[in-house]
Amino acid sequence: MSIQSYDNIRAVEWHDGGLRLLDQRLLPHLEQWLTFSDALAVARAIRDMVVRGAPAIGITAAYGVVLAAQQRYEESSEHWKSLIEEDFKRLAESRPTAVNLFWALDRMKILLAGIDANPVVSLLAEAKLIHAEDIAANLHMGKLGAELIGGPCAVLTHCNAGALATGGVGTALGVIRIAYAAGKVNHVFADETRPWLQGARLTAWEMVQDNIPVTLIAEGAAATLMKQGKVKWVVVGSDRIAANGDVANKIGTYSLATNARHHGVKFMVVAPTSTVDMTIACGDKIPIEERPQAEVLSLAGTRIAPDGVHAWNPSFDVTPADLVDVIVTEKGVVEAPTVVKMAEMMKG
Amino acid sequence: MSIQSYDNIRAVEWHDGGLRLLDQRLLPHLEQWLTFSDALAVARAIRDMVVRGAPAIGITAAYGVVLAAQQRYEESSEHWKSLIEEDFKRLAESRPTAVNLFWALDRMKILLAGIDANPVVSLLAEAKLIHAEDIAANLHMGKLGAELIGGPCAVLTHCNAGALATGGVGTALGVIRIAYAAGKVNHVFADETRPWLQGARLTAWEMVQDNIPVTLIAEGAAATLMKQGKVKWVVVGSDRIAANGDVANKIGTYSLATNARHHGVKFMVVAPTSTVDMTIACGDKIPIEERPQAEVLSLAGTRIAPDGVHAWNPSFDVTPADLVDVIVTEKGVVEAPTVVKMAEMMKG
Repeated sequence: MSIQSYDNIRAVEWHDGGLRLLDQRLLPHLEQWLTFSDALAVARAIRDMVVRGAPAIGITAAYGVVLAAQQRYEESSEHWKSLIEEDFKRLAESRPTAVNLFWALDRMKILLAGIDANPVVSLLAEAKLIHAEDIAANLHMGKLGAELIGGPCAVLTHCNAGALATGGVGTALGVIRIAYAAGKVNHVFADETRPWLQGARLTAWEMVQDNIPVTLIAEGAAATLMKQGKVKWVVVGSDRIAANGDVANKIGTYSLATNARHHGVKFMVVAPTSTVDMTIACGDKIPIEERPQAEVLSLAGTRIAPDGVHAWNPSFDVTPADLVDVIVTEKGVVEAPTVVKMAEMMKG
Repeated sequence: MSIQSYDNIRAVEWHDGGLRLLDQRLLPHLEQWLTFSDALAVARAIRDMVVRGAPAIGITAAYGVVLAAQQRYEESSEHWKSLIEEDFKRLAESRPTAVNLFWALDRMKILLAGIDANPVVSLLAEAKLIHAEDIAANLHMGKLGAELIGGPCAVLTHCNAGALATGGVGTALGVIRIAYAAGKVNHVFADETRPWLQGARLTAWEMVQDNIPVTLIAEGAAATLMKQGKVKWVVVGSDRIAANGDVANKIGTYSLATNARHHGVKFMVVAPTSTVDMTIACGDKIPIEERPQAEVLSLAGTRIAPDGVHAWNPSFDVTPADLVDVIVTEKGVVEAPTVVKMAEMMKG
């Protein structure tokens, strides 16, 4: 009998001198990899959600800087540092909410500032380090989060905070994978997560790949699932966590948090420290992306609403810290998060 | 300038000696009427959601009994009363949650019991009376509900509790239509209502037909809408109300109710007394239909989830009376419903 390993799924790869992304718009029906050698194409791929998930966006942007450096240094070994500013700008403009994007770009920019020769080898090493750190952070968070779950029990997750959203086994799904392996989680309920269906298309696919029992629900059924005592934990990822522990995550997360509190279900947020933005005091200040109305007016390419109807499509919401039971990062566990506890964790 | 009238949409019609149903599976893309002359076909149409919405199901079943009586009396003027039992059984089995179905069948059965001659004319008159009473109830509830709204404000509704779900202007949408005409409601937010998309397909369509400004949202965005103070009321219909005021309605309603309470948004349920089931003490006893997994796993024939994934698809949930601010029926308004207040309203 082979040993089940939970690190077989990858969304982002550096391969043969180029960046490869698994096109998440086509999952679960088609597993198609796209190859990128151009930084602006990488920025477009982030915007168009070829790749999504805060940590995966950060890693992708880091590799995008490598491609930009290669292009710009070939263009001009003298002026590449000023030319590459445009690439940083385009990458930074690709999506506004996931702070991992800006975190990764800043990290690459700081390294770059100290380089005068051809920067490509150094930048690639840094991008690979960002990627490797995320893989390690996922495993570490998985272990810390799984320890919190008493189990055996079922859990509910929202959107996709798995291998497809990160460099490794995932944030929320990393905890779930490791807790499942330890017999603490015995079933996963996945919110389908309208409008983009990350739960139905991506989380369900990841769980099937790893033989973890998964049941899909429409988001409207989550409160009843909790009322019936079918889940003990809600486990989600995050796109940005403010200094006070307020959590931005996929639209619909906040509703789960109010319902979890109402029903005595525990609410766990799993995210690497690259997702924590200590420069933002509270969630109200987190920029929330509004995506095209067409994502709501259509479903899987089929128009569902009549002509003449508008849609409001905020892509994220903010769950206030007081509805969060625990935040798990690779630096530790913060129960009932506050400004002070978050600052202590970040120092640790 | 023509006067805007809000009673132009019909879902159920008795026409030229037969029953006509607007096929709600095809809306908003296609307005196709189906004609029925056979009671078992009517039962199938209810099951398959050609027609849906508790009051509309009740009216349809009453007309189904007329068709059954016609068939059975032609079959045998002697044994039609025993033969028609099978038709009652099939109609009653079509869907389990909406009590209006059983209420209408019981009412037809009581009338039928006292008839020995050809029952068709009497039964048709009774079915038309049920239909006419629902039209009147809608208008009365619309007036009572609109009076409760301070306005001008925006409201949120879930599923479709409109003309398509009733005989008249609708329950929740009846209130909204009349409140909009009175300047008390200035905007409608419609939950898309997965999995069957009644909000996106039906409510949005009704609002567009009547030139009432409507914005569609994914259900995950409802809590944020409330947090931002964008809506003052949630207004919904019901499929069955227990004697204590617990409310069964489309899956997702309960989550709106917990969020409405959390955010200080008022929660109004609008339903005729044919929806109130005084034989059921509380919501836990209301039978909740589970519909096919395929409704969640696919959309409009497009599979959205990977193979190997199951779905849980309860079609309704129960909102406890203590989360309901007001129940509006044609007999009156019940604020903060209790067993005693509900019984008083039903007597009135």
